[in-house]
Amino acid sequence: MTRIKIDVYGLLEKIRKEKPVVHHLTNWVTIYDCANIVKVLGASPVMAHAKEEVAQMAKIASSLVLNIGTLTIDFVEAMKIAAISANAKGIPVVLDACGAGATQLRDQKCFELLDEVKINIIKGNSSEIARIAGENVATKGVDANLVNKDMIQIAKNLASQRQATVVITGKEDIVSDAKKTYIIKNGHPLMANIVGTGCMATSVIATFAAVEKDLSLAASAGLVCFEVAAEIAAKSSLGPAKFKEKIFDTIFKLDKKTLDKMQRVEV
Amino acid sequence: MTRIKIDVYGLLEKIRKEKPVVHHLTNWVTIYDCANIVKVLGASPVMAHAKEEVAQMAKIASSLVLNIGTLTIDFVEAMKIAAISANAKGIPVVLDACGAGATQLRDQKCFELLDEVKINIIKGNSSEIARIAGENVATKGVDANLVNKDMIQIAKNLASQRQATVVITGKEDIVSDAKKTYIIKNGHPLMANIVGTGCMATSVIATFAAVEKDLSLAASAGLVCFEVAAEIAAKSSLGPAKFKEKIFDTIFKLDKKTLDKMQRVEV
Amino acid sequence: MTRIKIDVYGLLEKIRKEKPVVHHLTNWVTIYDCANIVKVLGASPVMAHAKEEVAQMAKIASSLVLNIGTLTIDFVEAMKIAAISANAKGIPVVLDACGAGATQLRDQKCFELLDEVKINIIKGNSSEIARIAGENVATKGVDANLVNKDMIQIAKNLASQRQATVVITGKEDIVSDAKKTYIIKNGHPLMANIVGTGCMATSVIATFAAVEKDLSLAASAGLVCFEVAAEIAAKSSLGPAKFKEKIFDTIFKLDKKTLDKMQRVEV
Repeated sequence: MTRIKIDVYGLLEKIRKEKPVVHHLTNWVTIYDCANIVKVLGASPVMAHAKEEVAQMAKIASSLVLNIGTLTIDFVEAMKIAAISANAKGIPVVLDACGAGATQLRDQKCFELLDEVKINIIKGNSSEIARIAGENVATKGVDANLVNKDMIQIAKNLASQRQATVVITGKEDIVSDAKKTYIIKNGHPLMANIVGTGCMATSVIATFAAVEKDLSLAASAGLVCFEVAAEIAAKSSLGPAKFKEKIFDTIFKLDKKTLDKMQRVEV
Repeated sequence: MTRIKIDVYGLLEKIRKEKPVVHHLTNWVTIYDCANIVKVLGASPVMAHAKEEVAQMAKIASSLVLNIGTLTIDFVEAMKIAAISANAKGIPVVLDACGAGATQLRDQKCFELLDEVKINIIKGNSSEIARIAGENVATKGVDANLVNKDMIQIAKNLASQRQATVVITGKEDIVSDAKKTYIIKNGHPLMANIVGTGCMATSVIATFAAVEKDLSLAASAGLVCFEVAAEIAAKSSLGPAKFKEKIFDTIFKLDKKTLDKMQRVEV
Repeated sequence: MTRIKIDVYGLLEKIRKEKPVVHHLTNWVTIYDCANIVKVLGASPVMAHAKEEVAQMAKIASSLVLNIGTLTIDFVEAMKIAAISANAKGIPVVLDACGAGATQLRDQKCFELLDEVKINIIKGNSSEIARIAGENVATKGVDANLVNKDMIQIAKNLASQRQATVVITGKEDIVSDAKKTYIIKNGHPLMANIVGTGCMATSVIATFAAVEKDLSLAASAGLVCFEVAAEIAAKSSLGPAKFKEKIFDTIFKLDKKTLDKMQRVEV
């Protein structure tokens, strides 16, 4: 792997200028934080899940987030309707496989979504992605079990199999569209001590994907942006709650110099 | 228009003393912030949406908030049941037309609510209210599109047509009950950089409406209270997340001197 | 009553080491705070409510929270399925009787839960618990009405009747399993000025119950932990929102010396 520089700030500037609408069907735990992270990036979050309106809402959006954290069968049906609309419009659909592996329902619904609609970015931690890739692992709740498999290879294979960009978050993040694979080495341990970092990362990725067609680049840039902010936030935080507040405030003001200097990306 | 002084503190004191219950059927994104803003005002928020209990819950409340931000058909049915109960008790019903204009479902459900139950205060940004007033505008998600119409006239007309108080939030807020029209010039640009200010404003208005029968006065006083707090909070905030925290903490302690001095209201 | 010392830190250390999964079916207002308080304790929160997965999710958990704050009939049915699974596995089930007494639906559903599944810890404020115990009181929304009854006796009787541990929160908390009764004298008045302290207390109790079989001890230790953190947080908080942030950050770092020194428990 070799160290590269990606133009994170260029995309962030585009987000701030174009203010894309990012439509979410997401979980009820972190829904505020997901909306707010999109907002402080400069974009416009919309959370709407009624079957009767999701297709129309997806049509005014520039990307769509599906997060199964608090799924129900009806909710996943609404996700499918939204995704079909997004697919028709040609906007990227990002799936957060939150808790995949924890229950049969989650596995089944992830596979239904992957089989029945086009998912452009599949995102999860190592155990979630391993499960979706058909590897035999168990998820302990929604927290990551580190697995011994070669996660880079799993990401590449899944990307190839599903013709999607695959994002595996962890101490180092893996982003692969089968042809290119990025490793993001930014981030901070405090991210594991609050609820919502995984969900927010997904919303950030979707926001970057709303302005950049190269989805592995968009996802990588989004992760860099979020995790550089986390590194800065951690420096002046006495604990995880203050840390979360500072992530929002840091993202709101991120500049080119900081993003260029602090990013640690390999390809 | 002429500058006036309204007794915001007198109403705030009444809220703190009477601790009215403010019943909400609201959206899942900002539900915590809506409850908490009511709480720091000194009142008692209740969020309950089961069809089987909303009528009874509305009966123990002093005002009712209906916010369609994450509406479903069933949820709006529960709103109607709650509103009918509130109407029968004679407590004010406040509708936040969150996202009206974005989808046909939202428009249809707003009109159903306006036609089938008595809405006492109709609140939205300029594009949402224009849509409800039958003007031809489009909403980009839930964020405001400024429109070129004379919003004051639209507010007056809608107030007259629906026999309600109409609140249009924006850089300057318009509050009209057709006979009287207030312009509130408080507020801060940072309010547009976090999710939830619109929803919280609605909950604040409903809390003031719980203790003051003159609803255009109540709505104006509520907006002044919220926006004066925002101005104070902005002074010591490095970013939008800290700003939100400080809005809560500022409202909790607002005093007469500050509210008298900082309010900028015209009539 | 005599002052005693309980080993709060020993249990906190166990939580941090074992990282138990705490499964919640809880209300939509405070769901984030409930998840996050479990997280900063060092445990792993899971919020899942689909009927099709709650039994399986409860099986990977070490305790289960049922909170009826925003109940619906379907949601309570999912609670029953989760609780039956938890009962079969032998993990503790904690019921937060949020708003009991406010509506007939809440009363009815509390009694159904108590009658149809095994509830190991019943938690509420004085008016909620009095209602569940069959005393004739009214709840004003979800806030506590102080009642004149002897709440200690009510706690003991209910504990005996339901063969459960009963927790009554208030200025002083009562924890009784009929045989033993603890009084927790920690806490701070600011806790009454934000939304979510009651719900978070329940999640903390469930987290301690996940690592300690003596449930009245677990509940007491959880309350001490939460309320000592609140006392520390209040010292440096200018208002209720900052106070909440500091509760999270204080819990994250609580040490043995502080917990030993600051606890005020009688038995």
